[in-house]
Amino acid sequence: MRDNKQESANGIHFSIPDVIRKKRDGKELTEQEIQELVDRLVSTDSGHRAHDSQIGAFLMATFLNGLTNAETSALTRAMTFSGYTFQWPLEWKGTVADKHSTGGVGDKVSLVLAPALAACGLRVPMISGRGLDFTGGTLDKLEAIPGYTVLLSKEKMQAMLDTVGCCIVGQTEDIVPADKLIYALRDITATVEREELIVASIISKKAAEGLDSLILDVKTGRGAMMKELEQSRSLARKMVDVGKSFGMNVTALVTDMDTPLGNTIGNALEVAEAIQSLRNEGPEDLLTLTSYTGGHLLFSTGKATSVEDGKSKILQAIRDGSALQKFQDMLVGQGVDAEVAQEVSFGNIWKHLPASVNVTHITASSSGFVEDIDPLAIARVCHSLGCGRTKPGSPVLLEPGVVLKKKLGDAVQAGDILCEVHQGKILASDTHLESLRNAIRVAENAVKTRSIIIDVIE
Amino acid sequence: MRDNKQESANGIHFSIPDVIRKKRDGKELTEQEIQELVDRLVSTDSGHRAHDSQIGAFLMATFLNGLTNAETSALTRAMTFSGYTFQWPLEWKGTVADKHSTGGVGDKVSLVLAPALAACGLRVPMISGRGLDFTGGTLDKLEAIPGYTVLLSKEKMQAMLDTVGCCIVGQTEDIVPADKLIYALRDITATVEREELIVASIISKKAAEGLDSLILDVKTGRGAMMKELEQSRSLARKMVDVGKSFGMNVTALVTDMDTPLGNTIGNALEVAEAIQSLRNEGPEDLLTLTSYTGGHLLFSTGKATSVEDGKSKILQAIRDGSALQKFQDMLVGQGVDAEVAQEVSFGNIWKHLPASVNVTHITASSSGFVEDIDPLAIARVCHSLGCGRTKPGSPVLLEPGVVLKKKLGDAVQAGDILCEVHQGKILASDTHLESLRNAIRVAENAVKTRSIIIDVIE
Repeated sequence: MRDNKQESANGIHFSIPDVIRKKRDGKELTEQEIQELVDRLVSTDSGHRAHDSQIGAFLMATFLNGLTNAETSALTRAMTFSGYTFQWPLEWKGTVADKHSTGGVGDKVSLVLAPALAACGLRVPMISGRGLDFTGGTLDKLEAIPGYTVLLSKEKMQAMLDTVGCCIVGQTEDIVPADKLIYALRDITATVEREELIVASIISKKAAEGLDSLILDVKTGRGAMMKELEQSRSLARKMVDVGKSFGMNVTALVTDMDTPLGNTIGNALEVAEAIQSLRNEGPEDLLTLTSYTGGHLLFSTGKATSVEDGKSKILQAIRDGSALQKFQDMLVGQGVDAEVAQEVSFGNIWKHLPASVNVTHITASSSGFVEDIDPLAIARVCHSLGCGRTKPGSPVLLEPGVVLKKKLGDAVQAGDILCEVHQGKILASDTHLESLRNAIRVAENAVKTRSIIIDVIE
Repeated sequence: MRDNKQESANGIHFSIPDVIRKKRDGKELTEQEIQELVDRLVSTDSGHRAHDSQIGAFLMATFLNGLTNAETSALTRAMTFSGYTFQWPLEWKGTVADKHSTGGVGDKVSLVLAPALAACGLRVPMISGRGLDFTGGTLDKLEAIPGYTVLLSKEKMQAMLDTVGCCIVGQTEDIVPADKLIYALRDITATVEREELIVASIISKKAAEGLDSLILDVKTGRGAMMKELEQSRSLARKMVDVGKSFGMNVTALVTDMDTPLGNTIGNALEVAEAIQSLRNEGPEDLLTLTSYTGGHLLFSTGKATSVEDGKSKILQAIRDGSALQKFQDMLVGQGVDAEVAQEVSFGNIWKHLPASVNVTHITASSSGFVEDIDPLAIARVCHSLGCGRTKPGSPVLLEPGVVLKKKLGDAVQAGDILCEVHQGKILASDTHLESLRNAIRVAENAVKTRSIIIDVIE
């Protein structure tokens, strides 16, 4: 076996087992040790590269013993610079911004926010992901639009930011390769749910985008990765601190994910709802969250005099159609036929999107008020209907999903439709329908709903 | 990436990440889960096989959270049956025995014990290892005898046990393959020093030998893997318990390794000392330990009426030359030319062994008594002189080593030779000589020495 005892680039003696042992024994690693370890992860020299077993052991030692703030920053930095990092033209200084969400059920904010920010003069190089497990992926949703391509060259991305102001693309191999590798191994080694590793994964990808400002949407509740408010707050705090160490303006919103966001869950269904929102016909919670996240970015980049002013500007860009125009331009820039982009944006949304031909209704058995909508239960049914994947790389279905006809707190008459179940080539079973019936609970008395923005962490 | 969610052979749903998560969270794994995990380690089907990162993560979770006794037994069993296990002729029942030592400085007991046991009517299929780090390997030592081959076929091994009664061989690929794999990965993932993993590694290899009786020599002190007596006792207890669960008679001796065993350290030097011992001219501590371990095996296999009787029989086989004759027969059976074997055993030992031509003396600077001989310090010097290796597979030198001319407690006059430093193609530096001078301490007053056998655990 390799002994991994080699001189490092800077001549310091370095041994991977020694670094693993130190973390195993709960000691703090130096920035240099972390840097060297990450270099070894992505090394193309097989004698120099860390063995996969060593990465697995390091991840488990980190999962069980944690990382200090200094270690988390060092890991994030080393991961960021493990690959290509964007350097934008000097004259763009201060205008490059993005949002990241930790993932929630029905979360299509990115699709509305990126073009709205572009309409307000920001540049948004949004690098997004695909869905895995019960969370949906922005790229999977956009691919419901025929011709949309998620892989752009770096020159094309820069051209898009120059002419349109935004793009929503996938991560190419050479951007944060250390994260790609670590993320895949965390998934199979049961080391996903460790705050410091989540921070490093998210912030390294955003730092590589060369951002001036970043807003983080940290979800909390049953439909979120972090179910407990304190967990979400803690994650937000760490991400803000580490993000700031890169010189970015970073703010985190802790937002409610104890009920789905908007009215739709499913790939084509969510794209359609995003476009409706860009037409100013979207659900209130989605518009609130979009304008809030956008407002923070406009304020932190100096495009607005306050967060409130920024919110107004986002809503104005939606009302006056300029955000929708940016959306259409983005589609064309990312490979969608001009006529299709025009029709989808300003005409009949469903003319080109794949629609379900098999829709089943879930109705209320009693009158009252919607007391609870369990986002995880709904997401799981959507996943079973083909919206999500169980392994990276496998295909997803575009048509299926759930459309909520009643939201939390809404008054309901017995017999009213609570939700529609849209099915593609996988039909809903009795178990699926029963799960949905149980997921939407009606109570006799009116209930209090909580605000979508729970906390702001700066 | 593979999802590892597959049906197991018995139709039970099995997921490697789930098993890792369970151990990560400190829960007890079932026998079936451990069995399935080990199956996946050695699977030749790449879609079914565990990813190296998963083994690394599992080893680290095990290192940090430990294994229960039931888990340790299950792991040992699964590892044992991951490959070929010896089944001896029925008429041998009760006569197949072996010894295992956890490794000490100057420990050449195996070379004396195996032929002595064979002379007393036992069958000893001794599968030994090579040295790594500061510990010497029995196979490296035997290879100082020209022509000695450590790789015998299973048929040849059985023939050796039938005609000679013993053989000392290396581990072939198909014996306990799970241990081979886990051992190599423990080494590079900083997960070596975990008692339960050590137990599983040792006992699985011995159980695969199809033994009726096993004696364990668990060293304790500065020259041992386990430095503290309580660690050594605990390891011995666990090995005895797990070994017994295979239906073997198992006894463990906890023995002193706070001073080197015998007078020599080094490959050819130790072979020569073993042969001298078989000629009944060996150092007392080596003969004591050999007769004690052998006496236990003769008693537990019914070849002696008590351990004391067994000890006498071992010493008798050494005195009457029958053990030495078995040694010669073993050499010939393992490929040594008959004349060489005869000369080495009964003639001039050094005629065929590679001797050092460069010997330096360390002398006493004051008179008194030898108060301390640090085995680890001496082993480290021998290692630097080429006796050991830093990576598996690299060659070792046969000639170099240290010969102690004074033992613990011996009276010394200023100017007396304390030890000889035998050098091969690597010459001893001033630092080496200084280390040796510091390793052997002389005090004014006589010191108490401790008995080599510290505890017996049955």
